[in-house]
Amino acid sequence: MTVLVLDEKSCMGAEILKRFGQRVRNERLKRSFSQEKLAEKASLHRTYIGMIERAEKNITLINIEKIANALEISIEELLKESSKNE
Amino acid sequence: MTVLVLDEKSCMGAEILKRFGQRVRNERLKRSFSQEKLAEKASLHRTYIGMIERAEKNITLINIEKIANALEISIEELLKESSKNE
Repeated sequence: MTVLVLDEKSCMGAEILKRFGQRVRNERLKRSFSQEKLAEKASLHRTYIGMIERAEKNITLINIEKIANALEISIEELLKESSKNE
Repeated sequence: MTVLVLDEKSCMGAEILKRFGQRVRNERLKRSFSQEKLAEKASLHRTYIGMIERAEKNITLINIEKIANALEISIEELLKESSKNE
Protein backbone atom coordinates (compact mmCIF):
# COMPACT_ATOMS: atom_id res chain seq x y z
CA MET A 1 0.00 0.00 0.00
CA THR A 2 1.21 3.47 -0.90
CA VAL A 3 1.12 6.40 1.50
CA LEU A 4 0.12 9.54 -0.34
CA VAL A 5 2.75 12.25 -0.08
CA LEU A 6 1.08 15.61 -0.49
CA ASP A 7 3.34 17.74 -2.62
CA GLU A 8 2.56 20.02 -5.58
CA LYS A 9 2.81 17.21 -8.10
CA SER A 10 0.17 15.12 -6.35
CA CYS A 11 -2.44 17.86 -5.92
CA MET A 12 -4.53 16.64 -8.84
CA GLY A 13 -4.38 13.14 -7.43
CA ALA A 14 -5.28 14.23 -3.92
CA GLU A 15 -8.46 15.83 -5.25
CA ILE A 16 -9.74 12.57 -6.73
CA LEU A 17 -8.93 10.75 -3.48
CA LYS A 18 -10.92 13.35 -1.53
CA ARG A 19 -13.93 13.05 -3.83
CA PHE A 20 -13.76 9.27 -3.67
CA GLY A 21 -13.43 9.27 0.12
CA GLN A 22 -16.47 11.54 0.47
CA ARG A 23 -18.41 9.32 -1.91
CA VAL A 24 -17.59 6.20 0.14
CA ARG A 25 -18.57 8.01 3.34
CA ASN A 26 -21.87 9.26 1.88
CA GLU A 27 -22.84 5.87 0.49
CA ARG A 28 -21.84 4.17 3.76
CA LEU A 29 -23.93 6.59 5.86
CA LYS A 30 -26.93 6.27 3.51
CA ARG A 31 -26.94 2.58 4.46
CA SER A 32 -26.36 3.34 8.16
CA PHE A 33 -23.22 1.21 8.04
CA SER A 34 -20.48 1.84 10.58
CA GLN A 35 -16.90 1.83 9.27
CA GLU A 36 -16.56 -1.54 11.03
CA LYS A 37 -19.54 -2.99 9.19
CA LEU A 38 -18.37 -1.75 5.79
CA ALA A 39 -14.86 -3.05 6.52
CA GLU A 40 -16.20 -6.47 7.46
CA LYS A 41 -18.41 -6.71 4.36
CA ALA A 42 -15.48 -5.65 2.16
CA SER A 43 -12.91 -7.88 3.89
CA LEU A 44 -10.81 -4.81 4.67
CA HIS A 45 -9.61 -3.35 7.97
CA ARG A 46 -11.69 -0.71 9.77
CA THR A 47 -8.74 1.70 9.98
CA TYR A 48 -8.23 1.29 6.23
CA ILE A 49 -11.84 2.42 5.55
CA GLY A 50 -11.18 5.48 7.73
CA MET A 51 -8.02 6.29 5.80
CA ILE A 52 -9.85 5.96 2.47
CA GLU A 53 -12.64 8.26 3.67
CA ARG A 54 -10.05 10.83 4.78
CA ALA A 55 -8.17 10.52 1.46
CA GLU A 56 -5.04 9.34 3.23
CA LYS A 57 -4.46 6.40 0.89
CA ASN A 58 -4.23 6.00 -2.85
CA ILE A 59 -6.70 3.12 -3.14
CA THR A 60 -6.17 0.34 -5.69
CA LEU A 61 -8.72 -0.92 -8.21
CA ILE A 62 -9.08 -4.27 -6.41
CA ASN A 63 -10.03 -2.49 -3.17
CA ILE A 64 -12.35 -0.07 -5.02
CA GLU A 65 -14.19 -3.17 -6.27
CA LYS A 66 -14.33 -4.66 -2.76
CA ILE A 67 -15.90 -1.47 -1.39
CA ALA A 68 -18.35 -1.19 -4.31
CA ASN A 69 -19.43 -4.81 -3.75
CA ALA A 70 -19.85 -4.20 -0.01
CA LEU A 71 -22.04 -1.15 -0.78
CA GLU A 72 -23.88 -3.16 -3.47
CA ILE A 73 -23.32 -0.55 -6.17
CA SER A 74 -21.30 -0.66 -9.37
CA ILE A 75 -17.78 0.68 -9.53
CA GLU A 76 -18.92 3.30 -12.07
CA GLU A 77 -21.63 4.45 -9.69
CA LEU A 78 -19.16 4.66 -6.80
CA LEU A 79 -16.75 6.70 -8.90
CA LYS A 80 -19.29 9.25 -10.13
CA GLU A 81 -18.54 12.83 -9.19
CA SER A 82 -19.75 13.27 -5.64
CA SER A 83 -20.44 17.02 -5.77
CA LYS A 84 -24.08 16.62 -6.81
CA ASN A 85 -24.76 14.34 -3.84
CA GLU A 86 -23.22 16.54 -1.16
CA MET B 1 3.48 -0.04 -6.64
CA THR B 2 2.08 -3.45 -5.79
CA VAL B 3 2.76 -6.57 -7.84
CA LEU B 4 -0.37 -8.69 -8.09
CA VAL B 5 0.16 -12.19 -6.76
CA LEU B 6 -2.26 -14.53 -8.48
CA ASP B 7 -3.58 -16.92 -5.87
CA GLU B 8 -7.11 -18.09 -5.13
CA LYS B 9 -7.91 -15.13 -2.93
CA SER B 10 -7.10 -12.60 -5.64
CA CYS B 11 -9.13 -14.23 -8.43
CA MET B 12 -11.98 -11.77 -8.08
CA GLY B 13 -9.52 -8.90 -8.11
CA ALA B 14 -7.63 -10.23 -11.11
CA GLU B 15 -10.87 -10.23 -13.11
CA ILE B 16 -11.45 -6.52 -12.59
CA LEU B 17 -7.84 -5.81 -13.54
CA LYS B 18 -8.28 -7.80 -16.75
CA ARG B 19 -11.47 -5.96 -17.68
CA PHE B 20 -9.84 -2.61 -16.90
CA GLY B 21 -6.72 -3.48 -18.91
CA GLN B 22 -8.81 -4.47 -21.93
CA ARG B 23 -10.80 -1.29 -21.59
CA VAL B 24 -7.64 0.86 -21.56
CA ARG B 25 -6.30 -1.03 -24.57
CA ASN B 26 -9.57 -0.65 -26.54
CA GLU B 27 -9.86 3.07 -25.81
CA ARG B 28 -6.18 3.60 -26.63
CA LEU B 29 -6.49 1.77 -29.97
CA LYS B 30 -9.71 3.64 -30.85
CA ARG B 31 -7.57 6.79 -30.70
CA SER B 32 -4.69 5.18 -32.60
CA PHE B 33 -2.42 5.95 -29.65
CA SER B 34 0.71 3.87 -29.15
CA GLN B 35 1.48 2.79 -25.58
CA GLU B 36 4.27 5.39 -25.70
CA LYS B 37 1.88 8.18 -26.65
CA LEU B 38 -0.64 7.26 -23.96
CA ALA B 39 2.17 6.99 -21.40
CA GLU B 40 3.51 10.41 -22.34
CA LYS B 41 0.08 12.05 -22.18
CA ALA B 42 -0.58 10.41 -18.78
CA SER B 43 2.90 11.15 -17.38
CA LEU B 44 3.41 7.43 -16.81
CA HIS B 45 6.05 5.01 -18.11
CA ARG B 46 5.42 3.05 -21.31
CA THR B 47 6.17 -0.27 -19.60
CA TYR B 48 3.64 0.64 -16.91
CA ILE B 49 0.89 1.07 -19.54
CA GLY B 50 1.79 -2.36 -20.93
CA MET B 51 1.56 -3.91 -17.47
CA ILE B 52 -1.84 -2.28 -16.86
CA GLU B 53 -3.17 -3.56 -20.19
CA ARG B 54 -1.95 -7.07 -19.34
CA ALA B 55 -3.51 -6.85 -15.83
CA GLU B 56 -0.11 -7.29 -14.20
CA LYS B 57 -0.55 -4.39 -11.80
CA ASN B 58 -3.21 -3.38 -9.33
CA ILE B 59 -3.59 0.22 -10.52
CA THR B 60 -4.27 3.02 -8.04
CA LEU B 61 -7.04 5.62 -8.28
CA ILE B 62 -4.57 8.44 -8.99
CA ASN B 63 -3.18 6.56 -12.00
CA ILE B 64 -6.70 5.58 -13.18
CA GLU B 65 -7.44 9.32 -13.26
CA LYS B 66 -4.22 10.05 -15.18
CA ILE B 67 -5.12 7.48 -17.83
CA ALA B 68 -8.73 8.71 -18.07
CA ASN B 69 -7.48 12.28 -18.53
CA ALA B 70 -5.00 11.16 -21.20
CA LEU B 71 -7.84 9.37 -23.05
CA GLU B 72 -10.11 12.39 -22.50
CA ILE B 73 -12.91 10.35 -20.96
CA SER B 74 -14.36 10.32 -17.47
CA ILE B 75 -13.22 7.81 -14.88
CA GLU B 76 -16.76 6.37 -14.79
CA GLU B 77 -16.68 5.86 -18.54
CA LEU B 78 -13.27 4.20 -18.36
CA LEU B 79 -14.47 1.84 -15.62
CA LYS B 80 -17.65 0.71 -17.38
CA GLU B 81 -17.88 -3.00 -18.11
CA SER B 82 -15.90 -3.58 -21.26
CA SER B 83 -17.73 -6.70 -22.50
CA LYS B 84 -20.16 -4.76 -24.68
CA ASN B 85 -17.27 -3.04 -26.46
CA GLU B 86 -15.25 -6.13 -27.26
